[in-house]
Amino acid sequence: MSSHYGENLKLTVFGQSHSAAIGMTLEGLPAGKEIDLEALQRFLNRRAAGNNAWSTARREPDVPEFLSGLVGNRLCGVPLTAVLQNTDTRSQDYRNLVDCPRPGHADYTAQIKYHGAQDAAGGGHFSGRLTAPVCVAGGICLQLLAQEGISVFSRIVAIGGVRDESEWKESAAEKTFPVADDAVGQRMIAAIEAAKKDGDSVGGIIECRITGLPAGLGDPMFDGMENRIAKAVFGVPAVKGIEFGNGFAAAGLRGSQNNDRFGLENGKVVTMTNRCGGILGGITDGMPLEFRVAVKPTPSIAQAQETLNLKKGSMELLHIQGRHDPCIVPRAVPVIESVAALAVYDAFLARKKEC
Amino acid sequence: MSSHYGENLKLTVFGQSHSAAIGMTLEGLPAGKEIDLEALQRFLNRRAAGNNAWSTARREPDVPEFLSGLVGNRLCGVPLTAVLQNTDTRSQDYRNLVDCPRPGHADYTAQIKYHGAQDAAGGGHFSGRLTAPVCVAGGICLQLLAQEGISVFSRIVAIGGVRDESEWKESAAEKTFPVADDAVGQRMIAAIEAAKKDGDSVGGIIECRITGLPAGLGDPMFDGMENRIAKAVFGVPAVKGIEFGNGFAAAGLRGSQNNDRFGLENGKVVTMTNRCGGILGGITDGMPLEFRVAVKPTPSIAQAQETLNLKKGSMELLHIQGRHDPCIVPRAVPVIESVAALAVYDAFLARKKEC
Amino acid sequence: MSSHYGENLKLTVFGQSHSAAIGMTLEGLPAGKEIDLEALQRFLNRRAAGNNAWSTARREPDVPEFLSGLVGNRLCGVPLTAVLQNTDTRSQDYRNLVDCPRPGHADYTAQIKYHGAQDAAGGGHFSGRLTAPVCVAGGICLQLLAQEGISVFSRIVAIGGVRDESEWKESAAEKTFPVADDAVGQRMIAAIEAAKKDGDSVGGIIECRITGLPAGLGDPMFDGMENRIAKAVFGVPAVKGIEFGNGFAAAGLRGSQNNDRFGLENGKVVTMTNRCGGILGGITDGMPLEFRVAVKPTPSIAQAQETLNLKKGSMELLHIQGRHDPCIVPRAVPVIESVAALAVYDAFLARKKEC
Amino acid sequence: MSSHYGENLKLTVFGQSHSAAIGMTLEGLPAGKEIDLEALQRFLNRRAAGNNAWSTARREPDVPEFLSGLVGNRLCGVPLTAVLQNTDTRSQDYRNLVDCPRPGHADYTAQIKYHGAQDAAGGGHFSGRLTAPVCVAGGICLQLLAQEGISVFSRIVAIGGVRDESEWKESAAEKTFPVADDAVGQRMIAAIEAAKKDGDSVGGIIECRITGLPAGLGDPMFDGMENRIAKAVFGVPAVKGIEFGNGFAAAGLRGSQNNDRFGLENGKVVTMTNRCGGILGGITDGMPLEFRVAVKPTPSIAQAQETLNLKKGSMELLHIQGRHDPCIVPRAVPVIESVAALAVYDAFLARKKEC
Repeated sequence: MSSHYGENLKLTVFGQSHSAAIGMTLEGLPAGKEIDLEALQRFLNRRAAGNNAWSTARREPDVPEFLSGLVGNRLCGVPLTAVLQNTDTRSQDYRNLVDCPRPGHADYTAQIKYHGAQDAAGGGHFSGRLTAPVCVAGGICLQLLAQEGISVFSRIVAIGGVRDESEWKESAAEKTFPVADDAVGQRMIAAIEAAKKDGDSVGGIIECRITGLPAGLGDPMFDGMENRIAKAVFGVPAVKGIEFGNGFAAAGLRGSQNNDRFGLENGKVVTMTNRCGGILGGITDGMPLEFRVAVKPTPSIAQAQETLNLKKGSMELLHIQGRHDPCIVPRAVPVIESVAALAVYDAFLARKKEC
Repeated sequence: MSSHYGENLKLTVFGQSHSAAIGMTLEGLPAGKEIDLEALQRFLNRRAAGNNAWSTARREPDVPEFLSGLVGNRLCGVPLTAVLQNTDTRSQDYRNLVDCPRPGHADYTAQIKYHGAQDAAGGGHFSGRLTAPVCVAGGICLQLLAQEGISVFSRIVAIGGVRDESEWKESAAEKTFPVADDAVGQRMIAAIEAAKKDGDSVGGIIECRITGLPAGLGDPMFDGMENRIAKAVFGVPAVKGIEFGNGFAAAGLRGSQNNDRFGLENGKVVTMTNRCGGILGGITDGMPLEFRVAVKPTPSIAQAQETLNLKKGSMELLHIQGRHDPCIVPRAVPVIESVAALAVYDAFLARKKEC
Repeated sequence: MSSHYGENLKLTVFGQSHSAAIGMTLEGLPAGKEIDLEALQRFLNRRAAGNNAWSTARREPDVPEFLSGLVGNRLCGVPLTAVLQNTDTRSQDYRNLVDCPRPGHADYTAQIKYHGAQDAAGGGHFSGRLTAPVCVAGGICLQLLAQEGISVFSRIVAIGGVRDESEWKESAAEKTFPVADDAVGQRMIAAIEAAKKDGDSVGGIIECRITGLPAGLGDPMFDGMENRIAKAVFGVPAVKGIEFGNGFAAAGLRGSQNNDRFGLENGKVVTMTNRCGGILGGITDGMPLEFRVAVKPTPSIAQAQETLNLKKGSMELLHIQGRHDPCIVPRAVPVIESVAALAVYDAFLARKKEC
Repeated sequence: MSSHYGENLKLTVFGQSHSAAIGMTLEGLPAGKEIDLEALQRFLNRRAAGNNAWSTARREPDVPEFLSGLVGNRLCGVPLTAVLQNTDTRSQDYRNLVDCPRPGHADYTAQIKYHGAQDAAGGGHFSGRLTAPVCVAGGICLQLLAQEGISVFSRIVAIGGVRDESEWKESAAEKTFPVADDAVGQRMIAAIEAAKKDGDSVGGIIECRITGLPAGLGDPMFDGMENRIAKAVFGVPAVKGIEFGNGFAAAGLRGSQNNDRFGLENGKVVTMTNRCGGILGGITDGMPLEFRVAVKPTPSIAQAQETLNLKKGSMELLHIQGRHDPCIVPRAVPVIESVAALAVYDAFLARKKEC
């Protein structure tokens, strides 16, 4: 079912961009574990819009209210529900979109799917706003994974045409603009600003690395780590591609160039390289799990675009009124960490049945 | 659960490379529809190994025996089970792999996951052989989709470093070597032969296009067409990446370059370009659904590789005895069509609840 | 997963008896249908505690706030979330129950399951209070079923030792004390009052009848209507048995006495009797679906009971402080209708895939 | 999905009464455990038809062939598939049933559900024959539970009007006619013989007791042990009711009579009585889990019955040709043990995630 994720952990996301509130229910969390609510809020703030080149002008405090599942800050074993109020909405900005669907957005497909009954305001259930409750769920999973010695970090590796080819520095995640090489980061920001100035937007690529994983998570065939993560990651609006380890580059290599040799390091089985991204046969091999995600440029752009007026059947010039990020990639970084954490923690719980 | 796929259609795959048989159960098929068993066999033959540069020497007839779910050639509404015998196995070839895992293969992760109880022969449940029952399921879905006017075609767009940049010719699927530009295809085959001669292997990229889809299939968030297809596609061994429409290239574009303008064509809403790959907000927009899949080079190569002897804890030179494809890409083409058909037909059934 | 129900319709229930709020999310509802919110409130009021012999002294307004899924009173196709505040809680009444579990209640099993981290106040997630959001979901399904010509009615057929053997009068559901024969109803109320006076409680039996069902709902084996309804009904606290049609009485009959003869009535296939309760092979036969549910007496009684002090390991006299219904059967009637409506509407949606 | 059961363990059942074969796939079994195949065969033989008063004349060897999931007799962690051939079929006996549905059987509902495409021979997928693969799955779960110190026993407590009121003797399960009091058992057999002589059939009640369970299995609301077991038990053809502990009798009691007092016995928390059947709040309390199941009389009886000819629209005298058990209760005993074992082992695996 569409707004659900997980088998051993069960996430349900609800809300529309301009409904009274948005939120999520997460079931399957271990009773007795404590959640650091301040750390969770700091994590949520990474996703929040800020006074910077890439953020929307819409401001939401995004302080979750926990309706159930917590006693104090301790998980009590039953469904955890958190709600985030929608406070800064301007639904009138979206009135023209029911008849004139935005290019690249879900306006038209929602119209078909829900026979015109959809909540069009702010993109409804398709809005990037829905990633806020996903981050509540993900932020909690990140804390639970950390207690098991598992860390999830993401960074920006490309925006527009600008690429950061530098090696991993895990601290990138804590930066306002989470990139390894800050000089390259400045050029990425410049690319965003240039697009914004043109009433346009840019896309990018996010890389995610998960360390501290035991070997043995994931399953063959349809429940491999790739399947699990891909299913979660494509739940983030604007994601159009995912690759693990060498990914698409592997298609151009020979087996002798792409295989990772096994070896022993301090008594632990390792691979000398990690071209498989830490996954063999769908199952973690104990090396860092690595994947990259392609994020398309924000479809809602300020410049006028031609579109079809569905009612009149004629072409029309569309001026999008709503407030939108000229580049969602920076704010998507903690969202990618969140869905990765969900997928990994779900697999972690599955693994407990086997041990 | 790992060997299951689908919500409205339920596929269960079973078997190991060298078990008595392999097979699948498919539930949720519409009662009363007829299956063209000869056409199904022709489809299965596309996956079967042949006398060519890229196929393994293992020969299996791959004629499914239907145990249940059919009365004559008509679906009777209850679970359909098909079994394929394993006839040409040489389990002794795999004896050395329990202690010495093959680089790039699931030998080591299976060992960890199943505590040494795994069926190592022929790669067990992780073998590409398991794609045969997936093709039985997929071949049936392809026929049912065809009755709804929906077609699924795939072709090779890259092998090793050789790329086919030509436009779609849907007939490619029927060729022995399913590529649009046969001249490029000859260079791909040459790349495979060169790798084989070196005791090596090559990977590639498969492109899939689904036409005739109604707008409105798929759901927001975690059950979008991208999520559904990705979850299915990563069930195919050796797949390491997937992208929809412009995919990773979209990350380098601006919104104005990546958005697809809506328009009207013969009274039907269309988009003038199809950079989104026919999916907006997870939902089909009525244009062809297009995606590309990265297939890594076969990890089992003939040349000697160094690996760790898990028992002795020392490095060892590994000679792989089993019979393997120097390039699995050509035989993977109908498999990609199969998992795409499964994902699409499952979404098609889901959509019926809404109409 | 425990607080989830449904395959085509997906219910998630959250909250504890004394948490900030309780609520539910329901996904899979048809976009465009209107909900009569006043009728829904009237339905919820049937479950609410009243000034009568059988109700707890706890008073909650139980007015749902819809956070998402509705635009005005029209379903917009995405998850519907409703929240009910908890306003009249006295958590201090439950302090002694962590060490001294109430006989017949879930205090002890919750303690074991959640390692002491459970929310013990008011019975936590195990409280009958959680049936309020179930009734929000059920009330909506009842309205959607009514639009399809399907009605769900329940009545009390036994309380304590008092049985109502009279025939169905469907209007019973609208009564304050929903029994067919009001004279028998008075004796049932007297039985409740007598138990209450003794600081005790009584159980009873609820009968449910669903009319207007098409033949063909439900599936063989594990998804028959009996399986679906039983799974939902045992989600109501205190239910300890269920039987369909003749139920346990069928065990004492011969086939010739228990079979229902087919016949034709106004061109429609019917059965002359309905001993099977409208279900053959798990599938509706077009006759009224009928089942009975056994509800145990409220375990929380006013009179002192001996129990084990888990901490001290010695027996102790327990005085339960909380406010409890001396008989939950009357208030459970709309809850049984709710879970029946959920089960039937889910099967109804499933059936749409086949037609 | 209809022929699937379980969340952590995944059972898929396939086959029709007269298809080439029937069978099952079971996924989620722990790698490395050994299955005693001879003990499994002895268990299956308990279900097989015999030379006695209550069995059908159809004889099937019911020796499962394991296609996958076992290496020798050791589980290898991936889906286990077993197939049972159908050898003794007489499909011609069922030719008249498509037009003239048997009273009390699924002929009519299958006709509606599958639009006439159903496999009518032998009752198709609705046949009691499908309980053979269920017993393969159940027999394996019983062995795995036994390794955890958990035992599942069933016995007949009523047939026709004859009731066995005696106390539990666990050895009953091993008897040819599994009843505690053999003298009462003789009277039950006489009741069966009398019905058979009259071309009729009888129903009965089976009681099941599960001992050695840890406290803490099962979940609140929709995944309690009652929900899980009921969903499985109604998968057995002809079951029309289930009750746990005091069950329907609890409806006539007061709380003070129905509550179970906690106490300490050899350092273990116990209840002094077990009126709740070992389940509180859906969760096991460590006492024996007890339930009773109502089985209706075999609907296929030898004496002529009037039924509707669906094609002609007129009443007709039906003579059922197929071979049927005059009482299925004795052969259903191991089937009830099987579904109970499946439900309990699935909950056992779920519990491992929490510990």
